[in-house]
Amino acid sequence: MPEQQIVEPRLLRGFRDYLPGQMIARQRIIATIRSVYERYGFRPLDTPALEFRATLMGYGDENTKQIFEFQNPEEEHVALRFDLTVPLARVVAQYPDLPLPFKRYQVGPVWRADKPDPGRFREFTQFDIDSVGVSSLAADVEILCAMHDTFIGLGVQRFRIRFSSRKVLDTLLDFAGIPHGMAHGVFRVLDKLEKIGLDGVSAELTAGRVDASGDKIPGLGLQQAQVAKIRDFVDLPKGTRSEVLANLTRLFAGVPSSAAAIGDLTFLNTSLASLGMSDDFVALDLSIARGLDYYTGSVFEAMLTDAPEFGSVFGGGRYDGLVERFLGKSIPAVGGSIGVDRLLAALSKAGSLQDSSATARVLVLVMERDRMPEYLAIAQEIRKAGINTEVYVGEEKSLRKQLQYADRLGIPVGVIIGGDEFAHNTVTLKDLKQGAQLQEKKSTAPGVERERWLEKSRSVQRTVPREQMIREITAMLA
Amino acid sequence: MPEQQIVEPRLLRGFRDYLPGQMIARQRIIATIRSVYERYGFRPLDTPALEFRATLMGYGDENTKQIFEFQNPEEEHVALRFDLTVPLARVVAQYPDLPLPFKRYQVGPVWRADKPDPGRFREFTQFDIDSVGVSSLAADVEILCAMHDTFIGLGVQRFRIRFSSRKVLDTLLDFAGIPHGMAHGVFRVLDKLEKIGLDGVSAELTAGRVDASGDKIPGLGLQQAQVAKIRDFVDLPKGTRSEVLANLTRLFAGVPSSAAAIGDLTFLNTSLASLGMSDDFVALDLSIARGLDYYTGSVFEAMLTDAPEFGSVFGGGRYDGLVERFLGKSIPAVGGSIGVDRLLAALSKAGSLQDSSATARVLVLVMERDRMPEYLAIAQEIRKAGINTEVYVGEEKSLRKQLQYADRLGIPVGVIIGGDEFAHNTVTLKDLKQGAQLQEKKSTAPGVERERWLEKSRSVQRTVPREQMIREITAMLA
Repeated sequence: MPEQQIVEPRLLRGFRDYLPGQMIARQRIIATIRSVYERYGFRPLDTPALEFRATLMGYGDENTKQIFEFQNPEEEHVALRFDLTVPLARVVAQYPDLPLPFKRYQVGPVWRADKPDPGRFREFTQFDIDSVGVSSLAADVEILCAMHDTFIGLGVQRFRIRFSSRKVLDTLLDFAGIPHGMAHGVFRVLDKLEKIGLDGVSAELTAGRVDASGDKIPGLGLQQAQVAKIRDFVDLPKGTRSEVLANLTRLFAGVPSSAAAIGDLTFLNTSLASLGMSDDFVALDLSIARGLDYYTGSVFEAMLTDAPEFGSVFGGGRYDGLVERFLGKSIPAVGGSIGVDRLLAALSKAGSLQDSSATARVLVLVMERDRMPEYLAIAQEIRKAGINTEVYVGEEKSLRKQLQYADRLGIPVGVIIGGDEFAHNTVTLKDLKQGAQLQEKKSTAPGVERERWLEKSRSVQRTVPREQMIREITAMLA
Repeated sequence: MPEQQIVEPRLLRGFRDYLPGQMIARQRIIATIRSVYERYGFRPLDTPALEFRATLMGYGDENTKQIFEFQNPEEEHVALRFDLTVPLARVVAQYPDLPLPFKRYQVGPVWRADKPDPGRFREFTQFDIDSVGVSSLAADVEILCAMHDTFIGLGVQRFRIRFSSRKVLDTLLDFAGIPHGMAHGVFRVLDKLEKIGLDGVSAELTAGRVDASGDKIPGLGLQQAQVAKIRDFVDLPKGTRSEVLANLTRLFAGVPSSAAAIGDLTFLNTSLASLGMSDDFVALDLSIARGLDYYTGSVFEAMLTDAPEFGSVFGGGRYDGLVERFLGKSIPAVGGSIGVDRLLAALSKAGSLQDSSATARVLVLVMERDRMPEYLAIAQEIRKAGINTEVYVGEEKSLRKQLQYADRLGIPVGVIIGGDEFAHNTVTLKDLKQGAQLQEKKSTAPGVERERWLEKSRSVQRTVPREQMIREITAMLA
């Protein structure tokens, strides 16, 4: 090694390692999502981390300002992808033979050269599903259902998926007599509803307001009559999907452009009912707007009821313009994206994560190092029964230290074979979970309690003939 | 969208997309490897794509010349990782509380700014296992066994894992009376044995030679007597692990430094026998040297017998110095790396890849689009029986076009429900695999053959009561 000085081991700001405990949880989540998506017939895609900068740029939104870009050895301008949607659009345009509809999922890291803050990362994993080449809202329904099934599969008891349609907002402009040219500004203000309340929204739609930090936020200059119409819309009562839809239909009665919005929501409502989706889990919420300009129809997002501070862990909608940039013609598409890292954090907060840092279920302890080949063979025998098994191959010779290792990793069963066991062709099996619990109790249990503990502690390990080993281990793990 | 001109959809040279057919095969391979590694108790780790350039540099080998590097917004020098081993070393140094031995696996892309050629990529996926903090060769044995089990798990019938030890080569220097200072040069020449033959090697060890393209390759200037000793070593007959070991022991008898090499190989041989590893699959091959300088003990590699042109799909060995760069003290470690993309290509060549581009097993065809919610509900019912199911949500209205879609994706069962079926509460199930075969025959089968075909083709679809649907589909997929 030519360099002799010590290099400090450290991460770039905004980046993180996933150590085994977190990785095991993360892999479980990803496997659950994948199996749900495959249940719906979505197929996997992978694309490179690096793309031509020109491929990724030009969407005119925040994302492209945050791009990691540089030049490759050929001095071409390249960049790390900032999402999985733009590469999907490139793929659809690049391979004209792809059968449509193209229902694909993709999971992988994306990079944004965002200002790194605590909880804000420059590398994070997204899990996307999209149906490209589908104008039928059946595809939108499937994505909502798949998200529903994902939460159920993850063991989440309380979650809320909310959907609406951008067409509702377009109709709202007509209903309130606002020119469509103001759509962008009006929707941006409406999107702040949860944050600043209805009065804040009203102020920003009219004369403007002064925010908490004293900054003057200019208003859009709408008339009070227009704002009153918007308030009527915002004030529509919450309720079941059918109730919300009925109220909206009444409010928009007589607005010719409402047919498209009402038609779409009616289809979604009928289909979700037909699929047995509970109103508790999948709600029609007209306040959903989604920041991104490119949504053209349905919009949706989802959160964990017990971890609201993590915000939306899933979001998406219908977009038509994305492939057009590459192809010159538009292709209808709908998709959604799960923020895997945010979901992981929210699940952890909501208590829906099983924690384990071990993959092994059994640790074979090594009492006599010169008989290592025999320990290896015993472990292999247990593996052949389909049980993940580790031999202690580390440097510690004492039983206590080896058990400590099992404990730190959360391995539930120890197999102990020393001179006695070798001589009598037996194995001693130790229930490490129960053992660890008893050890904790031991320190606080005096007198009679201690007696009882000693008796119990004998029961956590026992010696059985070698040929019964697999059966006993299987029983202990059951 | 602010930019109106069309962006050409294309990939950077040296990068590639994985479309669903390839991705499904790739995911199967990765899942198999993962499950074998977890069977041995290895635990997952993930690290960032980007690291400080200083973290990755300074290994003095080819890899660091091929690094993708740039400056982040803070003008720090950053780079894309070129392997998964250096990040592992950083992790071990950075988290002193990690329980040792740290047995981890990691799968992910690495990047090298290599000259892109056909078949040579700048982004490729590695699947690594390493045991860090383990001096016992039991860990080396486990890695060999895990690789063996991986091939078996992948359904490979003919493969060859070969191992040796760098200590054999160290002893060879003493045996041949060559100063250890020449080790690097001598090993580099020996590594070419398969490519240039024994005479080529002898020439490069002594006076040099002129290669096929007319270039003069200088020799190392060894004596003929030294080269004769090396030839004795190279000429050792092949055979079972025990035979090769016995021959080597005889050859090196009287060389004091041979004890370490012979001791290591004896342990590996005894353990592999104890684990029932066949000599056909796991061979002691003294010609293995591995290019990388950092191996200090065992070295190993593996190839598919039916795809030798893909070379080594797995390689690794024991290394001690890697963590030292970060920690100031050395930690014993052993590891191996699978080149996932190369393995995929080799498996494909060897005929060991099942090919499928569908995740769905059933396609529900849509005959009456205005009854879409009912089709969605039928698909959901099939999914609830654990069967991956897709509803045709695309734009094609004709049955023939929808069946073509199923055919292109390789979906084996079609569910057809039209007016008749809705009226009688039945479903028509179509065996698409058999149907596709018949279709192919149809075009060539005249006369009587055609009659027989028509009869058969009726048998590939039949109409059953709705309540029998799941049972029938399950039977068709069995």
